[in-house]
Amino acid sequence: MAKLRRQDLDELDRQDALAPLRASFHLPRGLVYLDGNSLGPLPRAARQRLRRVVDLEWGRDLIGSWNRHGWIDLPLVVGEKIGRLLGAGPGETAVADSTSVNVFKLAAAALALSPGRRTIVALASDFPSDLYVLAGLAELLRDGSDGRPVKVELVAPDDVGSALGPDTALLVASHVDFRTGRLHDLAALSRLAHQHGALVLFDLAHSAGVVPLELARWQVDLAVGCGYKYLNGGPGAPAFLYVASRHQDALRQPLSGWMGHAAPFRFEPTYEPAPGIGRTLCGTPPILSLAALDAALEVFDGVDVGALRAKSMALGEVFLRLVGERCGDAGLELASPANAVDRGSQISLRHARGYGIVQALAARGVVGDFRAPDLLRFGFAPTFLRFRDLWTAALALERVLEREEWDRAEHRRQLKVT
Amino acid sequence: MAKLRRQDLDELDRQDALAPLRASFHLPRGLVYLDGNSLGPLPRAARQRLRRVVDLEWGRDLIGSWNRHGWIDLPLVVGEKIGRLLGAGPGETAVADSTSVNVFKLAAAALALSPGRRTIVALASDFPSDLYVLAGLAELLRDGSDGRPVKVELVAPDDVGSALGPDTALLVASHVDFRTGRLHDLAALSRLAHQHGALVLFDLAHSAGVVPLELARWQVDLAVGCGYKYLNGGPGAPAFLYVASRHQDALRQPLSGWMGHAAPFRFEPTYEPAPGIGRTLCGTPPILSLAALDAALEVFDGVDVGALRAKSMALGEVFLRLVGERCGDAGLELASPANAVDRGSQISLRHARGYGIVQALAARGVVGDFRAPDLLRFGFAPTFLRFRDLWTAALALERVLEREEWDRAEHRRQLKVT
Repeated sequence: MAKLRRQDLDELDRQDALAPLRASFHLPRGLVYLDGNSLGPLPRAARQRLRRVVDLEWGRDLIGSWNRHGWIDLPLVVGEKIGRLLGAGPGETAVADSTSVNVFKLAAAALALSPGRRTIVALASDFPSDLYVLAGLAELLRDGSDGRPVKVELVAPDDVGSALGPDTALLVASHVDFRTGRLHDLAALSRLAHQHGALVLFDLAHSAGVVPLELARWQVDLAVGCGYKYLNGGPGAPAFLYVASRHQDALRQPLSGWMGHAAPFRFEPTYEPAPGIGRTLCGTPPILSLAALDAALEVFDGVDVGALRAKSMALGEVFLRLVGERCGDAGLELASPANAVDRGSQISLRHARGYGIVQALAARGVVGDFRAPDLLRFGFAPTFLRFRDLWTAALALERVLEREEWDRAEHRRQLKVT
Repeated sequence: MAKLRRQDLDELDRQDALAPLRASFHLPRGLVYLDGNSLGPLPRAARQRLRRVVDLEWGRDLIGSWNRHGWIDLPLVVGEKIGRLLGAGPGETAVADSTSVNVFKLAAAALALSPGRRTIVALASDFPSDLYVLAGLAELLRDGSDGRPVKVELVAPDDVGSALGPDTALLVASHVDFRTGRLHDLAALSRLAHQHGALVLFDLAHSAGVVPLELARWQVDLAVGCGYKYLNGGPGAPAFLYVASRHQDALRQPLSGWMGHAAPFRFEPTYEPAPGIGRTLCGTPPILSLAALDAALEVFDGVDVGALRAKSMALGEVFLRLVGERCGDAGLELASPANAVDRGSQISLRHARGYGIVQALAARGVVGDFRAPDLLRFGFAPTFLRFRDLWTAALALERVLEREEWDRAEHRRQLKVT
């Protein structure tokens, strides 16, 4: 097979029906940004919206904006827009708090929905914050009902089946492994959990907006995810949560703040949960951040997630081929599944000098990220990346490895630490 | 006593050493904004900062901004700035989540710090969201340790003494009653609770930035409050929380997300709480909203909260006198304590047509707010209000009452409802 040439990538860009989406973003000139899986870039619509929210809504209309500009409705309005990307039904998605807080709410709710069951099974490879929060919940409930404490059992993805049992209240799993990019089969995990009478809570932080999701069809019970990765909602954007309609009437979550009350402005002394997904809300939402997320979602208007997925898989495959052709002998190892269909929208490579390499790449205008001890992560966000960017990235990686540029970066790091 | 004249108020403005602070805000021309107790106006510094955060930090420097622009440090950096306004010691204040979420964290932590004690005493008049969250916590812990459920007992402020007992883990109280503006004596409540071996958790939403606070001197254990009222941090700005140094080592809070981990970027499977106040953090913070709050606090640089309090009391007294002189026979009743020292920075009046009056005032460019069933609330934010604004407000109120303008507003409301 002939090596890929620069013009082959230009041709791929010309054929890319999604290429016009790139114009929806402000992107620094000359930068190749392979970290949209950590923080999506600035959508033009978000920038404009923030100016309006600040100058006209907060600055001019002040308190009246809660009604006049619909601030009060944003958690459910934005939730609905995200729900479309999740394959959720209407009224099943809300935006609130952070992913971690939402894991707490929904895991607690799942225990309450599962009387007599006291075990939560989670993937040991899940994003640690999810695991920390589950541990916090278990610690809080250590004295448990029935005299039995809540237990969190961490397992490998392939051991889920044997871990589930009659005491399992909930299976928690991330759709995409944040280290390796491995994509888990949520439909299969959902079926498996349901066979044991357990509910599922999936973390979609690394798949919402880039992997087609069919939460309703897969019979997913509960889900969470963040707004600042492929959804491009801005740093620390509010998170989303999903509750299947069939569970909503019975759902009780302990962070029962006034925004989740049936009538918050009646200021009644007793909590009465709002009907539907609204009961998952807690305190007053951060409107500036929430409005940015709302506007950022315009990028997805009329865009098919299937097409995004196809492009993201193609980007990953081309990148792998380029890296193989140009850096084949440089000691890089693939830490992600070899097949695109088994990966989310990222590729992780292993290298003992990973930290230094990522720093040296950044100095060359190619931004990926590093996860200890030795992972180089590259995200392929199909909304703004071009195939020609992969050419730039692979060439930069080739140079960094050839010239062992990691040394300087590692040296700087040591200086900083001491 | 001679009636106050317009020129008397102008004279008060000329003598006001805090008058220059008004220039720190964008304020709509001609508007008299007596609702800074609900949503503070837009500080110029917050507007500028948001432009920078969006265009340069998010837009240009992207993921690198977490370190380069100190995003990762904001929760504690901004907490420290607020701590100065609370009379907190260094390292006792953080910014995170919403007030409601923080009530949950700290109430749960207080129970864990108080083995064997299972009762939370709270003021029945507290802001309902605090009460809802306490109820949510109690419901979660209904099966309790020692086989004893957690109980929340709601009492009147004057009945706190008799409600406290050997089972009381925590006394929860708002500094300022959100309906009447009544100011509670936190030092006395703290002493009282400690006599019974209970901890205190105070909600400072309506006093931070406008009433001098001495949390350390008053031996306050725990506190929370919001960033969007007198602190002017923007709609739904992140909230703050305070934990006295003496409790920090032992403090465990159940929303144990990665931002509260001792080393979040080591991605370890096991939660290890950060030293100090950092362990109260949970998920990734909403940076846009948090940066706005950070910048908004510049308004308080070099400003003495005692001077703010003196002006706010004077504003309230002048307003009451003007209302007495101009609307004395119009059926308004004072719902707030009669003495300025017993009030926070708001005055509430009672009137059967309160809703319509507040709407009619707004139509005349005087913004207060309404709390069902009959309360008109007016907030006196000393950072931007002028004494002459009170003249405008009192005259508008006089006109609305004389002409019974509430009718039109109530009529519009009915149309809207049906």
